[in-house]
Amino acid sequence: MELREELIEQVSKARSAATRLARTSGGMRNAALLAMAAGLEEQSAFLIEENRRDLEAGKGKALAPPLLERLALHPKTIAEMARGLKEIAALPDPLGEVTRMWRRPNGIQVGRMRVPIGVIGIIYESRPNVTADSAGLCLKSGNAVVLRGGSEAIHSNRAIVRILREAAEKTGLPAEAISFIDTTDRQAIYLLLKLSSYIDLIIPRGGEGLIRTVTENSAIPVIKHDKGVCHTFVDGSADFAMAESICLNAKVQRPATCNAMETLLVDQAAAAHFLPRAIRKFQEAGVQVRGCERTRAIVPGIPAASEEDWTTEYLDLILSVRVVRDLDEAIEHITRYGSKHSDAIVTNDHAHAMKFINEVDSSAVFVNASTRLNDGFQFGLGAEIGISTSRIHARGPMGLEELTCTKFVVFGQGQLRE
Amino acid sequence: MELREELIEQVSKARSAATRLARTSGGMRNAALLAMAAGLEEQSAFLIEENRRDLEAGKGKALAPPLLERLALHPKTIAEMARGLKEIAALPDPLGEVTRMWRRPNGIQVGRMRVPIGVIGIIYESRPNVTADSAGLCLKSGNAVVLRGGSEAIHSNRAIVRILREAAEKTGLPAEAISFIDTTDRQAIYLLLKLSSYIDLIIPRGGEGLIRTVTENSAIPVIKHDKGVCHTFVDGSADFAMAESICLNAKVQRPATCNAMETLLVDQAAAAHFLPRAIRKFQEAGVQVRGCERTRAIVPGIPAASEEDWTTEYLDLILSVRVVRDLDEAIEHITRYGSKHSDAIVTNDHAHAMKFINEVDSSAVFVNASTRLNDGFQFGLGAEIGISTSRIHARGPMGLEELTCTKFVVFGQGQLRE
Repeated sequence: MELREELIEQVSKARSAATRLARTSGGMRNAALLAMAAGLEEQSAFLIEENRRDLEAGKGKALAPPLLERLALHPKTIAEMARGLKEIAALPDPLGEVTRMWRRPNGIQVGRMRVPIGVIGIIYESRPNVTADSAGLCLKSGNAVVLRGGSEAIHSNRAIVRILREAAEKTGLPAEAISFIDTTDRQAIYLLLKLSSYIDLIIPRGGEGLIRTVTENSAIPVIKHDKGVCHTFVDGSADFAMAESICLNAKVQRPATCNAMETLLVDQAAAAHFLPRAIRKFQEAGVQVRGCERTRAIVPGIPAASEEDWTTEYLDLILSVRVVRDLDEAIEHITRYGSKHSDAIVTNDHAHAMKFINEVDSSAVFVNASTRLNDGFQFGLGAEIGISTSRIHARGPMGLEELTCTKFVVFGQGQLRE
Repeated sequence: MELREELIEQVSKARSAATRLARTSGGMRNAALLAMAAGLEEQSAFLIEENRRDLEAGKGKALAPPLLERLALHPKTIAEMARGLKEIAALPDPLGEVTRMWRRPNGIQVGRMRVPIGVIGIIYESRPNVTADSAGLCLKSGNAVVLRGGSEAIHSNRAIVRILREAAEKTGLPAEAISFIDTTDRQAIYLLLKLSSYIDLIIPRGGEGLIRTVTENSAIPVIKHDKGVCHTFVDGSADFAMAESICLNAKVQRPATCNAMETLLVDQAAAAHFLPRAIRKFQEAGVQVRGCERTRAIVPGIPAASEEDWTTEYLDLILSVRVVRDLDEAIEHITRYGSKHSDAIVTNDHAHAMKFINEVDSSAVFVNASTRLNDGFQFGLGAEIGISTSRIHARGPMGLEELTCTKFVVFGQGQLRE
C-alpha cells in the first residue's frame, strides 16, 4: 500500500502540472526544450558517470554485449539526445490549431481545437535516450509525462530526468511535468496502470513481453507499438529491377526494425524470371531464404518455409518467400498472416495498385516503395514517438499531433437548444 | 468455459464479416440500411409482439413506470427507428476519404485514408432503439458490430437484430456484421471484454455503474460516455437577458441529459443585478436552487449548497449557484469541480471569451450559447453514437468519422530508405 500511495502523490502532482502546462505558450515550451538540451550537453560528464554505474551493474548481471551497447551513453549519444530536443523545439506548436470552423443554420460557429491529452505514461526498456526523447515530445505537445524506464538504466534515467526537470523549472515550467518512477520494483508498473484518474494514456515502448504485460493489466487506454510481419508483393507487371531494389532495401537495410520485410510474395507470372536472381542477391547479402514448394521448384536447395514462418517477425536476416496465384491470393495471404503493419506492392498495373491500396488493411500501404519508409520522419511528421499498431486514436507513425486531442469550441450570439 | 467458447466463435465470425464489410461500396451499405429500415416498418407487428414479452416481464419485476416507458415500442417509435436508419443512409460515406496527400523530398506521395475501425462492441441498457441506431452507425462506417443490450429488453433486441440481419443479408452484406449476444448472463460481458484479438473498440452506453464496470474490466480500448457536471459562467459584461435565456435553456430544456447545466457561476459584479430575477425564473420553472453564502445573501431563503453539490450531476431540476470573484475564479471552479463535459461563458468582453475558450478544458466550450448544444446533430456531424468523455480517439459528440481510423497510403516510383 505504501508504494501505491507514493505513486498517487506523484501522479497527482503530474496531473496538476499538466493543467498548468496546457496553458503555457509554445514559446515557453520551446525555451524549456532548448534549456533541457543545453543541460544535457553541459552535464555530459555527470551523465557518463551515472551511466557507468548502470554499465557496471549490467556487467555484474552478465548482460549481453549488444544490450550493454544499447545502454551506454557516450559524448556522441548525449549530443544526439540534445540535438533531438532542439529539433523538437524547432517543430511547429501542435496546440491551439483549429483546422476548420463551420457555421450551423442557427448561426453558431463550431470548430475543433487541438489541446494536450493530459498526463501520458511511458513505460519503456533499455535505451536511456528514450527518456529525453519521450519527455521532449510530451512537453512540446503540452502533456505532463510519467516515465518508467527499465531497471538496468535506472541511474542514467534518473540523471537525465534530474537535468530535464532543472531546465524546465529554470524556464518557468513546473518540474512535475516530467515525473520519474524512481524504483526498480516491478509492482510499480501494475499499480501505475490502475491510476486512470491521474493518467490519460499509456504508451509502452519495448519488446513483446512488455507490451503484453501493459495491455493486459492497464485500466488506462494504451497505444501499442507492436510487431510487424511485413510483406512485399511483386506483381506480374512489376519493373523487376525496381522490385529487386525495393525488396532488398525492405529486408536488409535494417532487419531488426518493425517495418522490415519478413515475407516476399511473388505472382506466379513473375516468379520464374524474378526469383532466381532476387534470391541470389538476398543470399549474397547474407539473408537466409526459406521458400514455399513452388519457390523451391524454381530455386532448388532452399529450405522449406513452415506454416509458422508466415506469422513470424524474424527481426533478422531471414526471409520467407511464397509464390502466389495472383493479386487476390497475395491480399488473402497478407490478411491472414500479416500483422497489419507495413505492406507493399511493386506493380505497373494501375488497377492492381489501387486494389492493393484499398484492400490491404495495414498502418501503411505502399505502392512501389520500401516498407522501411513507414516512419514519422520519412512521412514528414517531424518526429515520432513510435509506430502505433493500435486502431484507436493513432495508427502508424505517431507524431506530435497524435499526442494531442481536440475540444469543440463554439461561438454563439445567444443560441439555445430548441 | 462453454460460454467463452460460444462467444469466441461468434466474435470470430464478426471479425471475418468486418473484413468483408470493409471492402463493400458505400452504395451497398446504404442499400442495406434502407432495407433494414423497410424491414423494421414491415415487421412492426412482430416487433410490438416481442416487445410485449419484455414489458410483461418488466411489470412482473415491478420496473418503475419511466423505465417501462423507455422500454416500450409503439408504431411511432418503430417509425422513428426506421427514419433514423434512412437518415444514416443519406449521410456521406465516411470511408475512403484522403483528406490531404503531400509529397516528400524523395518524391513519395503520402496520404491518410479513412478506413473502418473493425469490430465494435456496444454494451448498453434499456432502450431498444439503441440496437437499430448503433447497428446502423457501425454498418454505415464499415464496422461489424457486437451488440450486448440490457436483459430487460432481450426479446425486443433479439427481434430487431433478426430483422436487421435479414435485411443486410438480402442486400448482399454478411449477416454476421451484426452480432447479438443472446444471453442475459452478465458473465458474458466480462468474457467479451477480454476478447481483444476479435474486438477493436468497446462503447458502453448507459449509466455510471455500467460504464465503471466496462472501464475497469476491459482489455479492449473503451470510449466512455460519462457524466456531465456542466457550468455556465455569467460574466460582469454579459447581456443579462441573453444570459438568462441561455441559463434557463441549459437547465430546464431537458434536465436529464449529460449536457444540461448543473452549476451556475456568476461574477460578483453581476450577481446583485442578475441573480434575483434569474433565480425567480428558475423557481418558476420548477427548479430547486441551492446557493453559496453570497448567493444566499443576495436572494434570501435559498438552501445552502454543500461541497458535494459542486461535483454532483443532478440530471434533475436542481441547480447550484455560486458567486465568484472574477473569471479566474470561475475557471478555477470549473477545473476543480467540473467533469470536462460542456461549459459556457456568457460575456461581451472579448478577452474574457478567448481566455475561457483557451483555458477551460472540456469536450465542448461555448461562448454565448447553451451547453445543451453539445450534440452531434447540433454541431452538424449528421448523427452521433454519443458524447465521448474520453480524451483518446474521440472527444465530444462522436459521429461517423469517429467510428473510423486511418491508414497511411504511399505512392512511390521505387523509393528506398537511405
